[in-house]
Amino acid sequence: MRVLVIGATGTIGKAVVELLQKDHEIIKVGSRNGDYKVDLSSQESILSLFYKVGKVDAVISTAGLANFGKFTELKDEDYSLALNNKLMGQVNLVRIGKNFLNNGGSITLTSGLLGREPIPGSTVVSMANGGLESFVRASALELQGMRVNAVSPVFVKETMEMMGMDSSTGMTAADVAKTYKAAIEGEFHGETMDVRKFS
Amino acid sequence: MRVLVIGATGTIGKAVVELLQKDHEIIKVGSRNGDYKVDLSSQESILSLFYKVGKVDAVISTAGLANFGKFTELKDEDYSLALNNKLMGQVNLVRIGKNFLNNGGSITLTSGLLGREPIPGSTVVSMANGGLESFVRASALELQGMRVNAVSPVFVKETMEMMGMDSSTGMTAADVAKTYKAAIEGEFHGETMDVRKFS
Repeated sequence: MRVLVIGATGTIGKAVVELLQKDHEIIKVGSRNGDYKVDLSSQESILSLFYKVGKVDAVISTAGLANFGKFTELKDEDYSLALNNKLMGQVNLVRIGKNFLNNGGSITLTSGLLGREPIPGSTVVSMANGGLESFVRASALELQGMRVNAVSPVFVKETMEMMGMDSSTGMTAADVAKTYKAAIEGEFHGETMDVRKFS
Repeated sequence: MRVLVIGATGTIGKAVVELLQKDHEIIKVGSRNGDYKVDLSSQESILSLFYKVGKVDAVISTAGLANFGKFTELKDEDYSLALNNKLMGQVNLVRIGKNFLNNGGSITLTSGLLGREPIPGSTVVSMANGGLESFVRASALELQGMRVNAVSPVFVKETMEMMGMDSSTGMTAADVAKTYKAAIEGEFHGETMDVRKFS
């Protein structure tokens, strides 16, 4: 398959590329590096990316920005970033990307465990994830000849270690990547795929 | 209790007022009618409302706009309305309203069954509802001395009849209202309260 990976230079994205490149042709996209660049918060940037890349069999997004922050310290900008980037950026990947998918192709987005199992400080991240998962479930009812799913990762061990956290509850990026492989190679549609069930 | 009902002139709002006014002092707020008016999409309007009303024991929102529409026909404006009004309008009721709640007070928002059980045409409604439910669950972890919940209604019989739909799967507004009463009088916190469990 010809697979477009958006967020390919991030911790999860790199592991996804590593896992998939044995069997698939990978086009790597980052916000600053990669074969191509994209700004998820801009529809023009997304459209321009797809015009340059052309038709693909699968789109994987491991991208999308949203900040952690105490509820009482969250600013309007924190809400906007989560909604415009992590949520609508990925929604727009589906709205635009569906026109550049070969028949039977798939789009796989990234939400996160915090949508369903929040922690203190995760309010805007959780909100974006919850919105994205419901978007995927609803839009899948109408999207024909293609599949759309959200992968819901737990915290990644490598990130936790980098941040000085106890990483015992985390999962390696290599293990998280297996769920993206299942999403593009399987028959899932409209699902939120919890990485704990696929590693 | 002194209860602020936002959306008091709508189908569900009227039934909530009817049910609660026997035991509580109700302040009715609508977008165009009521004791006070508010534009949920404007933080200034919400702040102005609370400054006029003063402290309350409970805030109930049965308001929030989001359009139905086929996925392929949804416009940017449909996404914006759902996010700015139904989602962020109600989120801002919590961000601002928490400063005008008496100790132990509550804020009860309205999501809807479509967040978890979408139908064709419900994409932006589902997205807003899903985001709102995750927001409620997450913010509740940090909100002290107050409670926040979302009521998740099914389709209301009166609305279905008005729209010429088969109303056999619907619930009367009077029955839906019972869940809002449970939300303000009970101990729930951070919950999405499915009206089918409370009528």
